[in-house]
Amino acid sequence: MAPKAVVLLSGGLDSATVLAIAGAQDYELYALTIDYGQRHSREIHYARAQAKARQVAEHKVLHLELPDSRASALTDAAPLSPAQPGSAIPATYVPARNTILLSLALSWAESLGALDIFIGVTAVDYSGYPDCRPAFIEAFEKLANLATKAGLQNGKKFRIHAPLLDLAKHKIIERGRELGVDFALTSSCYDPDQQGRACGRCDACALRLKGFQQAGLLDPASCA
Amino acid sequence: MAPKAVVLLSGGLDSATVLAIAGAQDYELYALTIDYGQRHSREIHYARAQAKARQVAEHKVLHLELPDSRASALTDAAPLSPAQPGSAIPATYVPARNTILLSLALSWAESLGALDIFIGVTAVDYSGYPDCRPAFIEAFEKLANLATKAGLQNGKKFRIHAPLLDLAKHKIIERGRELGVDFALTSSCYDPDQQGRACGRCDACALRLKGFQQAGLLDPASCA
Repeated sequence: MAPKAVVLLSGGLDSATVLAIAGAQDYELYALTIDYGQRHSREIHYARAQAKARQVAEHKVLHLELPDSRASALTDAAPLSPAQPGSAIPATYVPARNTILLSLALSWAESLGALDIFIGVTAVDYSGYPDCRPAFIEAFEKLANLATKAGLQNGKKFRIHAPLLDLAKHKIIERGRELGVDFALTSSCYDPDQQGRACGRCDACALRLKGFQQAGLLDPASCA
Repeated sequence: MAPKAVVLLSGGLDSATVLAIAGAQDYELYALTIDYGQRHSREIHYARAQAKARQVAEHKVLHLELPDSRASALTDAAPLSPAQPGSAIPATYVPARNTILLSLALSWAESLGALDIFIGVTAVDYSGYPDCRPAFIEAFEKLANLATKAGLQNGKKFRIHAPLLDLAKHKIIERGRELGVDFALTSSCYDPDQQGRACGRCDACALRLKGFQQAGLLDPASCA
């Protein structure tokens, strides 16, 4: 029987690629999408499409009420201003976001009897978020094995997989393409218009555009 | 100006005491109650009463949808069977519960500019939950400082306070009494009846009864 894996799936380019990577490793896939009131709710629609395309065993979409939704431009109603990737931490930072997401994934994993959790963070072409760094992932893995019955009783170990950690955006795109990810069904923009079209100005758009250029590919989402 | 602290407040005896301890240390108090569909929703009523009694700056009650509510007897509809404290991990264990609760507290703390988070876990008279152990608390503190903008940018450090960690239940009760906690407005039972009366049989009831006996006090909640 294939081991189970919980994959955090936002509906963006990165997590769609991670889902394909986990699938290629012959895990039975359990996709987890957290709707925390982010602007880009279109991502959730795409998350469903990606989960369906990969024939996951189960896809769960959970609503999450954040303690302070005003703390991030990503969940606030205020307009977004462009940020410079790699410089300061931008206004789209959601306090402790990946800690919360991984905690919920851990909870589900333990319920399922899964020991493998996948998350699509990258520390290369990223926005400077502290919870995308290798040291954060390592610390969470250590925590997971102290926090749980599985880690305590069976001598089994949770593993937090972050297969994109060291990949530049164009490498992620190339990897996703090899694995047959349909990038037309992914959304990266922090601030799409009413029709779901990317703004082309936010740092997520800037990273995506540069990634497709460097990969020598056309972004199918921009041609929609 | 008093430093801010986020206090996880369930409405049980332990967290009511922790709120009083944090208040006695002159923090400005921000109480956080997470309603994850636990049986003992009466606790949330008591959490509000405790927060009011301590004149907290803000009390937030968040609804949380757990990935698998069937994974614990605490959120399931099945009847509870008595468990032996200190022996095996009981059916009331909620997978990764304290990791999730602390993650949400961390998110709010960072939004508020607070560096201090209080949680009422104890590793003495407890139910054998893995996420009540000192090593878990230490690992979460380390994670918190890697996961956040505050930990990254300012050289400031989050502190996870677990002031009950080494206290037996009767010591917690004595400490709470010294600080004027009204234990009539706390609920510990995992399985109260329709009128909110404690069952007297679950492990939380057993620990509470023994604690009051050892403290030489009457439990005001049992006299209601």
